[in-house]
Amino acid sequence: MTHPLAILSQRETNIARDIVRESHPGTVIDFREIFLNEPPKAELVEFLAIEHAGRLTPTTPRPPRRALCQYDVIGEDRIPQFHESIVDVVSRRRVKHTVVGKQHHASLTLSEFDVLVDRCMNSPLFQSALADFRLPDGFEVVIEPWPYGGLDETEENRRYFQGLCFARDTRSGNADTNFYSYPLPLIPVMDAHTQEIIRVDRPATGGKGDGLTEQTFKTDIIGHCKPSEYVPELLPEGTRKDLKPLNVLQPEGPSFKVTDESLVEWQRWRFRVAFNPREGATIHDVWYDGRSVMYRLAVSEMTVPYADPRPPFHRKQAFDFGDGGGGNMANNLSLGCDCLGVIKYFDAVITQADGSAQKLPNAICLHEQDNGIGWKHSNWRTGRAVVTRQRELVIQFIITLANYEYIFAYKFDQAGGITVESRATGILNVVNIDSGKASEYGNVVSGGVLAQNHQHIFCVRMDPAVDGVNNSVMVEESHPVPMNVTTNPHGNLYRVIKKTVDQATFMDADPKINRTIKMVNPHKLNPISGNPVGYKFIPMATQLLLADSRSVQARRAQFAQHHVWVTKHRDDELYAGGRYTLQSQKEVDGVADAVRRGDSVSDTDVVVWCTFGITHNPRVEDWPVMPVEIMQLTIRPADFFVANPAIDVPSSRNVSSQLVDSTCCREARI
Amino acid sequence: MTHPLAILSQRETNIARDIVRESHPGTVIDFREIFLNEPPKAELVEFLAIEHAGRLTPTTPRPPRRALCQYDVIGEDRIPQFHESIVDVVSRRRVKHTVVGKQHHASLTLSEFDVLVDRCMNSPLFQSALADFRLPDGFEVVIEPWPYGGLDETEENRRYFQGLCFARDTRSGNADTNFYSYPLPLIPVMDAHTQEIIRVDRPATGGKGDGLTEQTFKTDIIGHCKPSEYVPELLPEGTRKDLKPLNVLQPEGPSFKVTDESLVEWQRWRFRVAFNPREGATIHDVWYDGRSVMYRLAVSEMTVPYADPRPPFHRKQAFDFGDGGGGNMANNLSLGCDCLGVIKYFDAVITQADGSAQKLPNAICLHEQDNGIGWKHSNWRTGRAVVTRQRELVIQFIITLANYEYIFAYKFDQAGGITVESRATGILNVVNIDSGKASEYGNVVSGGVLAQNHQHIFCVRMDPAVDGVNNSVMVEESHPVPMNVTTNPHGNLYRVIKKTVDQATFMDADPKINRTIKMVNPHKLNPISGNPVGYKFIPMATQLLLADSRSVQARRAQFAQHHVWVTKHRDDELYAGGRYTLQSQKEVDGVADAVRRGDSVSDTDVVVWCTFGITHNPRVEDWPVMPVEIMQLTIRPADFFVANPAIDVPSSRNVSSQLVDSTCCREARI
Repeated sequence: MTHPLAILSQRETNIARDIVRESHPGTVIDFREIFLNEPPKAELVEFLAIEHAGRLTPTTPRPPRRALCQYDVIGEDRIPQFHESIVDVVSRRRVKHTVVGKQHHASLTLSEFDVLVDRCMNSPLFQSALADFRLPDGFEVVIEPWPYGGLDETEENRRYFQGLCFARDTRSGNADTNFYSYPLPLIPVMDAHTQEIIRVDRPATGGKGDGLTEQTFKTDIIGHCKPSEYVPELLPEGTRKDLKPLNVLQPEGPSFKVTDESLVEWQRWRFRVAFNPREGATIHDVWYDGRSVMYRLAVSEMTVPYADPRPPFHRKQAFDFGDGGGGNMANNLSLGCDCLGVIKYFDAVITQADGSAQKLPNAICLHEQDNGIGWKHSNWRTGRAVVTRQRELVIQFIITLANYEYIFAYKFDQAGGITVESRATGILNVVNIDSGKASEYGNVVSGGVLAQNHQHIFCVRMDPAVDGVNNSVMVEESHPVPMNVTTNPHGNLYRVIKKTVDQATFMDADPKINRTIKMVNPHKLNPISGNPVGYKFIPMATQLLLADSRSVQARRAQFAQHHVWVTKHRDDELYAGGRYTLQSQKEVDGVADAVRRGDSVSDTDVVVWCTFGITHNPRVEDWPVMPVEIMQLTIRPADFFVANPAIDVPSSRNVSSQLVDSTCCREARI
Repeated sequence: MTHPLAILSQRETNIARDIVRESHPGTVIDFREIFLNEPPKAELVEFLAIEHAGRLTPTTPRPPRRALCQYDVIGEDRIPQFHESIVDVVSRRRVKHTVVGKQHHASLTLSEFDVLVDRCMNSPLFQSALADFRLPDGFEVVIEPWPYGGLDETEENRRYFQGLCFARDTRSGNADTNFYSYPLPLIPVMDAHTQEIIRVDRPATGGKGDGLTEQTFKTDIIGHCKPSEYVPELLPEGTRKDLKPLNVLQPEGPSFKVTDESLVEWQRWRFRVAFNPREGATIHDVWYDGRSVMYRLAVSEMTVPYADPRPPFHRKQAFDFGDGGGGNMANNLSLGCDCLGVIKYFDAVITQADGSAQKLPNAICLHEQDNGIGWKHSNWRTGRAVVTRQRELVIQFIITLANYEYIFAYKFDQAGGITVESRATGILNVVNIDSGKASEYGNVVSGGVLAQNHQHIFCVRMDPAVDGVNNSVMVEESHPVPMNVTTNPHGNLYRVIKKTVDQATFMDADPKINRTIKMVNPHKLNPISGNPVGYKFIPMATQLLLADSRSVQARRAQFAQHHVWVTKHRDDELYAGGRYTLQSQKEVDGVADAVRRGDSVSDTDVVVWCTFGITHNPRVEDWPVMPVEIMQLTIRPADFFVANPAIDVPSSRNVSSQLVDSTCCREARI
């Protein structure tokens, strides 16, 4: 039988589509998403308890199997109305129906992007703006559709999209020439309901000393731009020849086991992998050696605000999970490219505009990797060294959002730790800058190409279940103590202060006092230390959102303004930046609102959110494709176990490793 | 001919020994170190310029080849006197001789440790203290020799050592039973010159509420302790059986080349690897694609202060590089254990007490590893994905300091980055705590075993040579800008402020403004961005030294009190914590003193030091051997190149990667 956490199958998705259609006779339905509405936690926890007790039978009551359906209903007035329905795909009944208020916009779909491109190309307004420029022969215009960003206060809240424009050199006949190196200072804006290009914004192309809106461009707009290719066959000197293969071989196969489609077992870990169009891969029901650790773990949201103050660049602010869906944008991964070794791929299901399920093959990959030494000790008395390697299990997915890519990974290790990793790569979003100018808003990374300063701010949502659902959050800090005769006669003491968080709150990283967040079970004490069993993380002291708190950018992204948020669990409260981020004017029902409820969070079903990010003032080295910028949130056991859980990892010598031979090391002394 | 940066050979070392002996007739010489006195920078730079220009000939003038010799001279008065000589091993002449002041102590040697153990065992004072306890049959006393730490102000500055005491269960006949799980509350103190046990300190074993010096122990001192073994054959349940092999194979060999004993070439990088008994592996003369990047890179010092205020625990403060020598303590590395793949080992030379050179085999390992995706971009229009993997070249050495180990690695990547990594592992230093008690000074990690709170603070010294010796340091910060009509109408602007450091100084990490340190060549501008070419790092916002600034711990470790230090280069100024740390009362001639000179550091030969660390409040999971705690300092190019230097890395599919088969994934859908 289907597990309650299994992603909706194509069959189930199509059932939901049919029910929605039947519920809205006489209308056209534009589907956006159909995906699993995860069971209410209370019901799922009950089911999981039976499952873990090994008492599941065919008659065990199961949580309902429901689809969350997001769609536009287009009636006779031709104005799309955004609806949400929850459909029970077993009983084939609609169990909930909401007409979402007009202040919110449904997430974007790629078909809207296609419409934008089409309408631009056919828009006299756009063509007339384009006529201000003279493109060299063989160059064609490329429109990069983008969400509109935050509305200005004076604007009517209609559904808009903007296009960032570039020119592509078609002369080589290669469809993958890099158009980002030829930016055009045109930003067409489309009203998505009327599908009309209503305006073409004309961003400035000036540099230091030029005004915010001053038009300084030349007709020969890309005459000072240069090719900057990244596909191997277009590199002037090809690829380097001196990199020898490095192969990862697992002759006895992997150490993991995947059963029941989503259940992963590896080195005493046991958890479920799921996927949804918004968050991409999610991790559920994490246990270690028969004890529960985490109910749910996911990357919840991210925002990328740009810092160029020249309008309309203030509208460049993506919410890459809420706007278009991190899952929708997931890459189809390839064997031997995105990871090495023995790899298990998971497929996903996404929704087409007509509501039909479409398989997204290889959306997630699962593999093991070696992460260097795990632990080592040498007894200098006897000369005996015991050294183990640290093996990790990696669940990875990669999303492409127009120019950028993000590689997300959940990594489980043998010492009971879980790391959430994000790697930012892809191509910088860039704009045109006049020849010879420099800018205080970014860096010139190629001729005529300004890469604007921006931030990438991520939020990871942790729903801990440390030996059970009811947990508390403790803040542990290490404080200096002034030298004094009574308690600190030699001045070396520092004091560890632990406090339980009583009420929903936010807080910031504070490395000066080594602020550490512990998710503990207050009812279960470690038999050795007497401390409550827990898992901990140190929030990374990275720069928070820089935009002025009164700005639309900041109002939309409150989650990006503090490093740690502690809330009480509510079903469906999964998204740090709120449920509807596309073109939002402020964060609604996001993590800040959840905190404002002021729930008691001690010894209850608590949720912890961790925000971290990169302030990305581009380097020339980030062009044309940037080397990965890696961020890691590491969650480690803290008195959860009675010893290092990796102590029994075998320390056997890897017999396939080799000494170098003399061909690479003349005069080698080994 | 021997390269000026090659480590002293055994032959050269023995020449230096002979010259020193001849210089002190009629005395006994106790040798501590003989190692390469690196050539004066001015001379070496000149030589390297000729080398890089390909103009070296047999007659090219070479910098002198000199040995730094540290030794005690024991004359008729039997009181050892600490001397340093510099010996030219080519001309066989002593070129410098210094009698080091009595306020300083030479670094410790393992033979002193042997003496301490021997004297304890034969000391009536120690035996009498030991008689207060009743050890079970089959247990023997183990003395763990330690540096004495900082002197109390009332103490005479003689050369002392302290012993931390444990009991070892000999009943299994296995010499590697873990004695750390049976701590004894005895700390014998030896005067190293008289070789007498002058005192046995009796640390408290109490818990919360007990006084700092209150004696509360029972005669049955380890009755409440338990075995906690880590060698595989002593694990009650053996090692786990479900970990399948993961092999790294390089069928065409490695991509690196090592010639001239120390010259490494790999993926356009070219540098020298050296080794000395103090810093371990050091990196020199780093070039990328014909351009110089760094003159010298090394881990300069580290300190591990403990925070238990009960005397004499305030004396637990190690300087692991200065006290005993990170190089002296380097492990002999083993194929297939300390790294995977094709490995090149470098041997080192250390000095025996009689001054003879001893080969330390396999002190450094060099290998390549895969670090996941290097860069990726998918063109969603065409579906074409280009993905490259990030290969790294790793130079690794591992040191064992009694209970702890540190794994240090210099990692070079294909995108022009250099990462200095430290992994802390090994066994916690622990003390006895009465049965059933908890402590505010640490965590009980095993029965009767208190692991005290402590910090590990590292300092990396970077001597940049960004396109030449004369560089400047720029501090780049990203500051919020209040919303205003003129410059920030929508509130999204943040301002990047860059300032050149004029005068030697220190500063701290400041993530609120994303403080970034750039080492630049002010005379060479990037042709694309117009910025000076440079390398940058973000100092990690980790907790600095917590001890009160008036404490001996803090006075000895000024380098541990700020994250970044900028100084002007001086020959031989290599050690952040000063040249002589053993039993120091304050940092002398360390990085803080170098800053106090107030040198101008702009457009000159500047040196940058980065301090970072871990506040380690132990977890039960850190016992009996702690899983690695990883810290990384990443130094990346910042407008040094004209594009991503890894853009030409081949994106070929790894043909040895495999799909999982059905044996591990029932019902797999792939």
